[in-house]
Amino acid sequence: MSELKMMKALDVGAKEIEMDGVEGITIRWLISKDDGAPNFAMRLFEIAPGGHSPLHTHDWEHEVYIVDGSGELEFEGTRRPFEGGWFISVPPGREHQFINTGDGIMRFLCLVPNDSY
Amino acid sequence: MSELKMMKALDVGAKEIEMDGVEGITIRWLISKDDGAPNFAMRLFEIAPGGHSPLHTHDWEHEVYIVDGSGELEFEGTRRPFEGGWFISVPPGREHQFINTGDGIMRFLCLVPNDSY
Repeated sequence: MSELKMMKALDVGAKEIEMDGVEGITIRWLISKDDGAPNFAMRLFEIAPGGHSPLHTHDWEHEVYIVDGSGELEFEGTRRPFEGGWFISVPPGREHQFINTGDGIMRFLCLVPNDSY
Repeated sequence: MSELKMMKALDVGAKEIEMDGVEGITIRWLISKDDGAPNFAMRLFEIAPGGHSPLHTHDWEHEVYIVDGSGELEFEGTRRPFEGGWFISVPPGREHQFINTGDGIMRFLCLVPNDSY
């Protein structure tokens, strides 16, 4: 059943991600199937300074909004900088990696379709 | 065709929303079908102090993240406050309205499925 859900994002419990190629990342599932979301999920990630997501490819898209901090996107061999207030659309099937190159925590929303999780 | 898109959200052109029941709102389409987004769209809204979205109902969901400012959600007759750093999941078919009750611009992301636009 799908009900209204509204709260402070940082009050949602964070889970450490343990996966090959991942360093210093937590995930908070803000809105997902478990809340009755019909189509897509909103997650909040935090990457510690020097941390990174895996360099990987998958057949679903990411829609990303950088909330705080700064970093670089490794995308098919090229590094591209971003900071808070930027958004990133990563198409399906394209190699990518998020890297925190700043001094503080880098926070970003990453939304994915329901059939990816 | 779906390509990488990354840029500062405020560099995307804003359009005034002209619709019954709307006061002081602009929309920026950050990621949409036009960019090849396969499933859902990311939009950035700005509501001026005192402004509001329409009090309405529709058969798709909203996944919202409050970027800046503060306001209230009118939801089926009850007002609920929120501020920057909160998220809101509005299920399909439920009456809702976003109101800027603060002194500054209220900015929020609102994501919707592709079949809603």
